[in-house]
Amino acid sequence: MLRIALDMDDVLADTHGKLVKIILKDFDTSLTEKDLNGASLRSLLHPKQYKKVVGVLNAPGFFRDIPVMKDAVEVVRELSGYYEIFVASAAMEFRNSLIDKFDWLDEHFPFIHWKNRVLCGDKSILKAHYLIDDHVFNLANFSGKGILFNAPHNLEDTRFDRVMNWKEVGERFLGNSRDRV
Amino acid sequence: MLRIALDMDDVLADTHGKLVKIILKDFDTSLTEKDLNGASLRSLLHPKQYKKVVGVLNAPGFFRDIPVMKDAVEVVRELSGYYEIFVASAAMEFRNSLIDKFDWLDEHFPFIHWKNRVLCGDKSILKAHYLIDDHVFNLANFSGKGILFNAPHNLEDTRFDRVMNWKEVGERFLGNSRDRV
Repeated sequence: MLRIALDMDDVLADTHGKLVKIILKDFDTSLTEKDLNGASLRSLLHPKQYKKVVGVLNAPGFFRDIPVMKDAVEVVRELSGYYEIFVASAAMEFRNSLIDKFDWLDEHFPFIHWKNRVLCGDKSILKAHYLIDDHVFNLANFSGKGILFNAPHNLEDTRFDRVMNWKEVGERFLGNSRDRV
Repeated sequence: MLRIALDMDDVLADTHGKLVKIILKDFDTSLTEKDLNGASLRSLLHPKQYKKVVGVLNAPGFFRDIPVMKDAVEVVRELSGYYEIFVASAAMEFRNSLIDKFDWLDEHFPFIHWKNRVLCGDKSILKAHYLIDDHVFNLANFSGKGILFNAPHNLEDTRFDRVMNWKEVGERFLGNSRDRV
């Protein structure tokens, strides 16, 4: 059975969307929502403000209530019938995210067994056929086939196959299976 | 560079030793320390008592102050000069262990970067040349070469190369390098 590893932030979870809301509400900025969705936050924000973003990411609870990406639950559940699904998040960068991410998966993806959850750092450690991730550097480190999940910070990359949303993931990985069902 | 993945419990950390102390102190048992070091706790204890052990493992803080296995810090530090070292613990079974394990590594193995830390479930997800682990089922799932770290619950296994302690790990993986140094 082919194995697909799925990233969490900006793939299963709309982490960027939550950050944009916080920036618009709490940061002193003239950037609009459209601006913030058009490039990486690191490139758009003043270094001092980006440091504040990192502080937000480090706060206990930040990763606990992130909205689920549209269609992710349904497509991942369907994928589970045809592929071995692992969730693999580079969570080690943020100590306080570990339990939040575990609980978030329990809430939204309870059908992903604890045996299939990975909190890691460098994604070169993953042994899987596919990795769906929004970060080019994660896909570049990965030994299998990398699929880039569209995100504001990767719009210009052309090295990897791109999927725009979970509907497209479903079409790519389940097209034939769905015809058979 | 060859990559070695290292398990935590009963490999880097003397988890069994901590449990034995707790059982001798807090459990109503006639088993001696020698008994408890001679076979798996699951096989030695009454199911009700083993359930109590699982409760101990689930308690926040349990994994935070486990003694480091003898010689582990020195040998792992030396290994880091010649191999790519990842720590990979099947921590997902115990939600509350996640932060404790992270902090424990920060305290005892600060030279292992967060990028090289993995909290996972099934070790078939690891892409590494070697895995040093005390559980036969982890080594059986692993795609690289498995090395069995001696422990009370694996004494009868003959399927994997066995190391008795960290000195032996050093001899196996650093023998030649040490000659060169």
